[in-house]
Amino acid sequence: MSITKEFSNVLIIGLGLIGGSIAKKLKNNSFNGEVHGIDNDSKVLSIAKENNLISNQTLNLDNLEDLLVVFCTPVLSIKAALSSFLSLDPSKEIIFTDTLSTKGLIYEVLQKEYKELKDKFVLSHPIAGSEKSGLMHSKHDLFEGRVSIISPHDTNQEDDIARIAEFWNSLGSRVKILSQSEHDFIFARTSHLPHVISYSLAESLFKNLKEKTFEYSGGSLEDYTRIASSDPTMWKDIFVSNRSNIISSIEEFEISLTNLKQLIQEGNEEEMISFLREIKRIRDISISDK
Amino acid sequence: MSITKEFSNVLIIGLGLIGGSIAKKLKNNSFNGEVHGIDNDSKVLSIAKENNLISNQTLNLDNLEDLLVVFCTPVLSIKAALSSFLSLDPSKEIIFTDTLSTKGLIYEVLQKEYKELKDKFVLSHPIAGSEKSGLMHSKHDLFEGRVSIISPHDTNQEDDIARIAEFWNSLGSRVKILSQSEHDFIFARTSHLPHVISYSLAESLFKNLKEKTFEYSGGSLEDYTRIASSDPTMWKDIFVSNRSNIISSIEEFEISLTNLKQLIQEGNEEEMISFLREIKRIRDISISDK
Repeated sequence: MSITKEFSNVLIIGLGLIGGSIAKKLKNNSFNGEVHGIDNDSKVLSIAKENNLISNQTLNLDNLEDLLVVFCTPVLSIKAALSSFLSLDPSKEIIFTDTLSTKGLIYEVLQKEYKELKDKFVLSHPIAGSEKSGLMHSKHDLFEGRVSIISPHDTNQEDDIARIAEFWNSLGSRVKILSQSEHDFIFARTSHLPHVISYSLAESLFKNLKEKTFEYSGGSLEDYTRIASSDPTMWKDIFVSNRSNIISSIEEFEISLTNLKQLIQEGNEEEMISFLREIKRIRDISISDK
Repeated sequence: MSITKEFSNVLIIGLGLIGGSIAKKLKNNSFNGEVHGIDNDSKVLSIAKENNLISNQTLNLDNLEDLLVVFCTPVLSIKAALSSFLSLDPSKEIIFTDTLSTKGLIYEVLQKEYKELKDKFVLSHPIAGSEKSGLMHSKHDLFEGRVSIISPHDTNQEDDIARIAEFWNSLGSRVKILSQSEHDFIFARTSHLPHVISYSLAESLFKNLKEKTFEYSGGSLEDYTRIASSDPTMWKDIFVSNRSNIISSIEEFEISLTNLKQLIQEGNEEEMISFLREIKRIRDISISDK
């Protein structure tokens, strides 16, 4: 049993893969409160309504008590999405969270331009997704067994953090805490860099092999370039909002790549095999420790 | 019904992941002939015998009529493996093939040092594998639905090529023809380069994130670094034997990486999104065309 109180209302801003999956899981959980949604695309909104994922026809925020607002927009759309909440009654019982893939920019926006919302905004990032975007690809079990990061800041309250943690738990994920700067440093390396690599590999292969790129491959190349089919707006926003961490991560990777390239160029078999063995050893240990 | 004749005897040299999977599939197919095996590791040989994957206790090649020999060794072990076949009666009905991941080196070895075996040697490469190596990870359906490349050369006979094609078909794979030089050019890019990248990415992450590398990842980083757990000897041999193609493929990739890095550095959102959209467009088309 949870000791924190379930929200009476959840409002999802952006009914794409992530927002749609939250709505589906809440429905699947037979969530006691009401789920509302906002999306720029009126067709998406109608589909969500028709499928009973959201209850609203129109939306009057003032009528929604004990409200959780979850921003599921691309990173650079957050400013515009936040602006509609400025006129809210400050005494209203409301907590904000988000699912944005970078945390530095949204924190800066809150700190500089939306200070009145900042205290009640608990930054989150569920580590779940797919190269397939949009409501049609959303699914109730997207967060099952995944990690959700919460990045509390100096003016968040313990109770609010606990309720957000409970919210992510209720969607099936395990919560881990990271500061926003740790989050952006780590995910530049574990997620943004692999995307940069996948886009670059795909470009390089299409340029040099053209229609032969996938003709002879056994399936693993499809997997390896899968994330190059991700949503372009989402990833453009991530690259813009976490630029300096991503540039550093690329530079670190270039050092390792140059090193291995040189081992191959020199053809020193002994050094090469100890390099490959060492990588395998660390990876096998790291994976089995998980 | 096949129009080519099934072999009466199959001898598998090297009972690792690939050789073991061939043996298991032949057993699974209730192959009419006999399956024999050779492995440097006597324990592996005993296990294969105990599991009725091979029939031989000892091996006398002279007694084996209508024999197919399949070399499933690491690339650089091929010379030593070939040497034991030099003393065979040249009138013997025997065809050779292999499963080596690069084709240039083995062709050169045949051409320069084993000319007496070359005519009857049809080069092959089943595009199947795993980061898990050894007989214990082999499985009868490893080749199911996969592509097997055959690289015929100038002194191969049509009948021999047809029998080898039929052999790979009987293991569940579809045969495609590529010259050895095309093979090594293409697989440098679609397979060897992704391995170079995966090893480099893994090294770079372990160096910069240490034990945090997989702590917050949602599963796709495990997939993305999976091939860095591949067999070190196998990959050292591939890097050595296909060096110049691999170096070129790394250089092509570096151009694409530098290009995307610069787009991120400059933060030009319009150029960035058209780059990402174009890659996604081509990849989505290529995959759906497959």
